[in-house]
Amino acid sequence: MRKIIEQSNKNLTESLAYQLELNTIPVGISARHVHLSLDHIDILFGKGYQLRIHKELSQPGQFAAKESVMIAGPKGTIDKVRILGPARCTTQVEVSLTDAHRLGISPPIRDSGDLAGSSPITIIGPKGSIYLKEGAIIASRHIHMSEEDARQFQVHDREKVHVVSQTKRGVIFSDVKIRVSADYRLEFHIDTDEANAAGLTNQDRVWILK
Amino acid sequence: MRKIIEQSNKNLTESLAYQLELNTIPVGISARHVHLSLDHIDILFGKGYQLRIHKELSQPGQFAAKESVMIAGPKGTIDKVRILGPARCTTQVEVSLTDAHRLGISPPIRDSGDLAGSSPITIIGPKGSIYLKEGAIIASRHIHMSEEDARQFQVHDREKVHVVSQTKRGVIFSDVKIRVSADYRLEFHIDTDEANAAGLTNQDRVWILK
Repeated sequence: MRKIIEQSNKNLTESLAYQLELNTIPVGISARHVHLSLDHIDILFGKGYQLRIHKELSQPGQFAAKESVMIAGPKGTIDKVRILGPARCTTQVEVSLTDAHRLGISPPIRDSGDLAGSSPITIIGPKGSIYLKEGAIIASRHIHMSEEDARQFQVHDREKVHVVSQTKRGVIFSDVKIRVSADYRLEFHIDTDEANAAGLTNQDRVWILK
Repeated sequence: MRKIIEQSNKNLTESLAYQLELNTIPVGISARHVHLSLDHIDILFGKGYQLRIHKELSQPGQFAAKESVMIAGPKGTIDKVRILGPARCTTQVEVSLTDAHRLGISPPIRDSGDLAGSSPITIIGPKGSIYLKEGAIIASRHIHMSEEDARQFQVHDREKVHVVSQTKRGVIFSDVKIRVSADYRLEFHIDTDEANAAGLTNQDRVWILK
């Protein structure tokens, strides 16, 4: 009898946890990082160099490379900046506002890939360096999700929602853009400033508020 | 005639600006800083040393000193940390969560002065250094205001409110504590992580949401 009650309680707890989890979104914190084009990998690491996988990321096919670079602005440098692979068409540097102050640059807050008029930045590798007239941004907060997630949360691609974090340092993030794609895994992407301001760590869970 | 219209428009604009301002609160961003006791000033700077005023702060009687110190944790140091005067009964170090990671410490999020069980930290001055078993905190966000402000905003001392920032990187801060005193000047105090996450700079204006 006791065993049956225990099992039943266990099922109930698991079911409740599942129900709760259904309505929440795990947090993924992006530290400063660089996406490189093949041409720029050649310049920074040598002709034909292949990035090596250090760790798979939560978004399918994406990885943190073993290689890192230094980035530099007029006021300072930051070394050991991780490279995210695979290679992209256009090189892009994503930093926090804290990093931007340290480097002495004023990048716009942008969606990934929207680089027109973004900040100039220098990237230094072991075999060479490049100066980008534009390429540094502060990434806009956003939620990646699949089409099934979008149906469940009753949101659509590019919709803007609020996101609630119920930490000790509670914050409601406004203007969070929904990004829907079959390739995306459910995750609320913020940078380290946003995570620190809200006291959030990776895999904490947040809610959508429409 | 034209002059009268111009003057009238000017009065209207000023009146509107005043009305708008009545309902908003200016932002004051606290960078990392240290409050020192007289005993500790003696150890760090030499017996009987007097802090020199670099800049008056917005809260009456408070000032940033010309002197600075280095602070250290098990993972790193941060130099040129500003000292805020005048001297206090108890030495206290206020850092951001970003700073805490750099130092390798885990300070609690606390109101100023609430130091029981806070993080150990080392403070290094030109004439000596001190090791505090407790003393480092991350300051809780709060709003300073006078009793008249409190009546106008219809809030009371220690009440918790939401604060809305309508920047490009909009954030609603939850759990913001109201602090009422005749000595206080109206200001929303946040740290650099919180300011950066919301894209706020000093003297930007925010709203209370009850």
